[in-house]
Amino acid sequence: MEKGRIRPWLRRYEDVTDIHFKSDVVVCGYGGAGASAALEASRAGADVLVLERAGGGGGATALSSCEMYLGGSGGTALQRALGIEDSTDNMVAYLHECFGTNADREKIRVYAEGAAEHFDWVESLGVPYKREAIYERVVEPFGDESLLYTGNERAYPFNRLAEPVPRGHVPSREGNQGGKIFMELLMRRVEEAGATIVTDARVVALVQDQESRVRGVMVRVDGEELFAEAGRGVILTAGGFVMNRAMIEQHCAHVLPYAEPYGSPWDMGDGIQMGLAAGANISNMSEVFLSLAIYPPARLTFGLLINNKGQRFVNEDAYLARLAHYAVQQEAQEVYLLVQNEDFERSHYMDPLPISGTGDTIEEVEKEAGLPEGSLQQTVAYYNEFAAEGKDPLFHKAASWTKPINKPPYALVSYAPRDVKYPLGEGPGYLMFTLGGLQTLPGGEVLTPQGDPIPGLYAAGRTTAGLPRTSKGYASGMSVGDATFFGRLAGRHAASHR
Amino acid sequence: MEKGRIRPWLRRYEDVTDIHFKSDVVVCGYGGAGASAALEASRAGADVLVLERAGGGGGATALSSCEMYLGGSGGTALQRALGIEDSTDNMVAYLHECFGTNADREKIRVYAEGAAEHFDWVESLGVPYKREAIYERVVEPFGDESLLYTGNERAYPFNRLAEPVPRGHVPSREGNQGGKIFMELLMRRVEEAGATIVTDARVVALVQDQESRVRGVMVRVDGEELFAEAGRGVILTAGGFVMNRAMIEQHCAHVLPYAEPYGSPWDMGDGIQMGLAAGANISNMSEVFLSLAIYPPARLTFGLLINNKGQRFVNEDAYLARLAHYAVQQEAQEVYLLVQNEDFERSHYMDPLPISGTGDTIEEVEKEAGLPEGSLQQTVAYYNEFAAEGKDPLFHKAASWTKPINKPPYALVSYAPRDVKYPLGEGPGYLMFTLGGLQTLPGGEVLTPQGDPIPGLYAAGRTTAGLPRTSKGYASGMSVGDATFFGRLAGRHAASHR
Repeated sequence: MEKGRIRPWLRRYEDVTDIHFKSDVVVCGYGGAGASAALEASRAGADVLVLERAGGGGGATALSSCEMYLGGSGGTALQRALGIEDSTDNMVAYLHECFGTNADREKIRVYAEGAAEHFDWVESLGVPYKREAIYERVVEPFGDESLLYTGNERAYPFNRLAEPVPRGHVPSREGNQGGKIFMELLMRRVEEAGATIVTDARVVALVQDQESRVRGVMVRVDGEELFAEAGRGVILTAGGFVMNRAMIEQHCAHVLPYAEPYGSPWDMGDGIQMGLAAGANISNMSEVFLSLAIYPPARLTFGLLINNKGQRFVNEDAYLARLAHYAVQQEAQEVYLLVQNEDFERSHYMDPLPISGTGDTIEEVEKEAGLPEGSLQQTVAYYNEFAAEGKDPLFHKAASWTKPINKPPYALVSYAPRDVKYPLGEGPGYLMFTLGGLQTLPGGEVLTPQGDPIPGLYAAGRTTAGLPRTSKGYASGMSVGDATFFGRLAGRHAASHR
Repeated sequence: MEKGRIRPWLRRYEDVTDIHFKSDVVVCGYGGAGASAALEASRAGADVLVLERAGGGGGATALSSCEMYLGGSGGTALQRALGIEDSTDNMVAYLHECFGTNADREKIRVYAEGAAEHFDWVESLGVPYKREAIYERVVEPFGDESLLYTGNERAYPFNRLAEPVPRGHVPSREGNQGGKIFMELLMRRVEEAGATIVTDARVVALVQDQESRVRGVMVRVDGEELFAEAGRGVILTAGGFVMNRAMIEQHCAHVLPYAEPYGSPWDMGDGIQMGLAAGANISNMSEVFLSLAIYPPARLTFGLLINNKGQRFVNEDAYLARLAHYAVQQEAQEVYLLVQNEDFERSHYMDPLPISGTGDTIEEVEKEAGLPEGSLQQTVAYYNEFAAEGKDPLFHKAASWTKPINKPPYALVSYAPRDVKYPLGEGPGYLMFTLGGLQTLPGGEVLTPQGDPIPGLYAAGRTTAGLPRTSKGYASGMSVGDATFFGRLAGRHAASHR
């Protein structure tokens, strides 16, 4: 066995011979979480070394539109400029409903209390936000607006438990380049603050001493394994594990029939593996984000989502991750959208979808699609009876999206995972990323299964079980919001420990 | 820090000073898996020490009816005596459908190939089996029969993918004492084979050397921590983690609103914690067994399970764990059984359940229960239309359980978890136990996240992710079958390693 190799991903400090890098804080991964951690640690006076496996920084955050889910404290500067009030309690109530018993209530509280300040910090980096909101049912703004609804705020049951408030904050720029803009600015600030960045540098092990303290990492650069000592702490910000097939099989095998990995190619779970090897606990590992983006176009929300029994199963005005959560529970994931001619339009995010049935009557559609005799007819008849008054007694779709399905021709479009292909995904399936990882305190301290912090070890972003916990309650902006917010806290905590 | 304490649940071999117990194989836990491992290791010529935290052996197996899910190889001796053929391929096909992508296909193959021989082994211990079967829809025999259907074999979709065969093997005795009978006999054989048993002995840590080999355990006896050396291997058979609230929160938080822990008070996850501390991987941790025992009485299967939208959601003739799997997906877990007078009878396993509505028409029931106007009426009308011909086009309930609901009065009984109370559970909820744990090979070798065996470490039973993987596909007899079968393999493997 290799010298000092206690197990994969872990080495003994006592066996280290040469110190190659020496700093106060070592950050493993230069995406949204890592860069935020590096900046705050540097600003707190620490010497910071950032190690990145890829050829450059950015991570999954750079691939995103950089939506951040922010609010509370009376409202962010952007919300307030638009006359929108948002109390911390209201934001907390919403987030509790989002994640139920999967929620980390301590993280929710800390996040909701600090999110408005976090917006100021992001804006202070130079990221452009326009004081303009878009209130349509969208996932990202069509234009250069900076504020939008990004979750289930206006949908049942959330609208009964918390005041709907738009909390999606997105850099102002047409064409969905938010993540690129944000990461470029953030990385510039990190470098200005004096941190050392080494790319093409894969961290291969934590180095732990006899008292369980993490003293640094082993990093492979140009084929050589070098020790990087961290005087104050190591921060793991290496992304989630969506690209690691073995980990998916072990922790969320249920998604294999219908999910398509979405993320950076380096979302291989390295940070989670290292934490585990050093005695950390993992949590929420079976939960993933899934996307069933029936909108935009928003008009399709007038349609009815049904399963292979012709039954509805969700209010169609829910957020795309919630739609997916319920869709995958249906037998064989056979789900369809029934839509009438006046509402039909092509999907913005998906390749063209197959039509399973068409007709001038619901009976014809039902028959052509091979649904059980009378099943869809019954569902539509019941829906129409109440929709005429803007009511949906079964699923409580908002009145604004409720109207009778009675203008032929009709089409039944398949949204089964096998029929759904996003240009962003390699194969068919609902886009997925992981929501489980190392168990941490809000400050980033990595915990053992017994709840004790591992000295010198911190983590943030999708390497951890963070703010977003289920697809059922997810909203756009929760991952980048969480990663950058808790990344900053981890950076400050690591810098302050001696 | 305590000397030699690398982290909780782990000590360094180099720091051990005194050897208190010395044997070839140390078995941690004296339930079904541990006793089976101990017997086979002893019979293979190893000196065996069994350490049990409780005051005596038995574990969760002794609390059970000792059903074992067995078949294949043309049939077990019991199946063949009753003229029942059961091919290994048929059993494999069934088990694959049970667990889908959560399945461990290697374990399924090894189990299906060896299950018939396993029955001979169990019978050779002296466990009484009567050559008689019961074919009713039951969970355990009412009388002294020894063979029964215990899963979804006769229900859709399983009946279309594999030939239905009864595979539940249960010791012959009225009054559900199978587990006690079995464990008493098994423990007697273990003692006859020469193993040393120490009770009231809590294993508190694995002891690992510099090469990662597990060399024994630290065990607390009479307040003292003693080292028990294992020359060939340590076998972890300490049960699941259903009684460990923190682990439930970390790995299956979604069950908290509706599940009631069911198991031995020592199912605290000790074995899983120790394995983790030694560098093991965990798998399938979010999956649990859940029970919604609407039967017996079997007649209630004629009823309709509906949610708070008046929709059906499962074929009512499925196994109780599958009924629960679908029930908990319904909004707020509000589920009901609609039953007509001639089929009404009290539940055998649950305390009396609240009636949410009664009436001489479905409309009256619907109104009294507060279901959306017309919803239940529509569901029943549709069901009745086809039930008259023994058909169920939506959920494919078997014709033998399908008949129109048209003989008033009717009752709607709530089976929401908050209304379900089993005498076996402390509070209300669907009975639950855990189905995740250490990742092992069929031979019991405990694996790291990289798939390498940890030298000297074995595990079996609910300390591992074993044969049963989901509530959706579970059948009675899969846990005791799995624990004893793979316990034996682990015992033999540990004994044979030097």
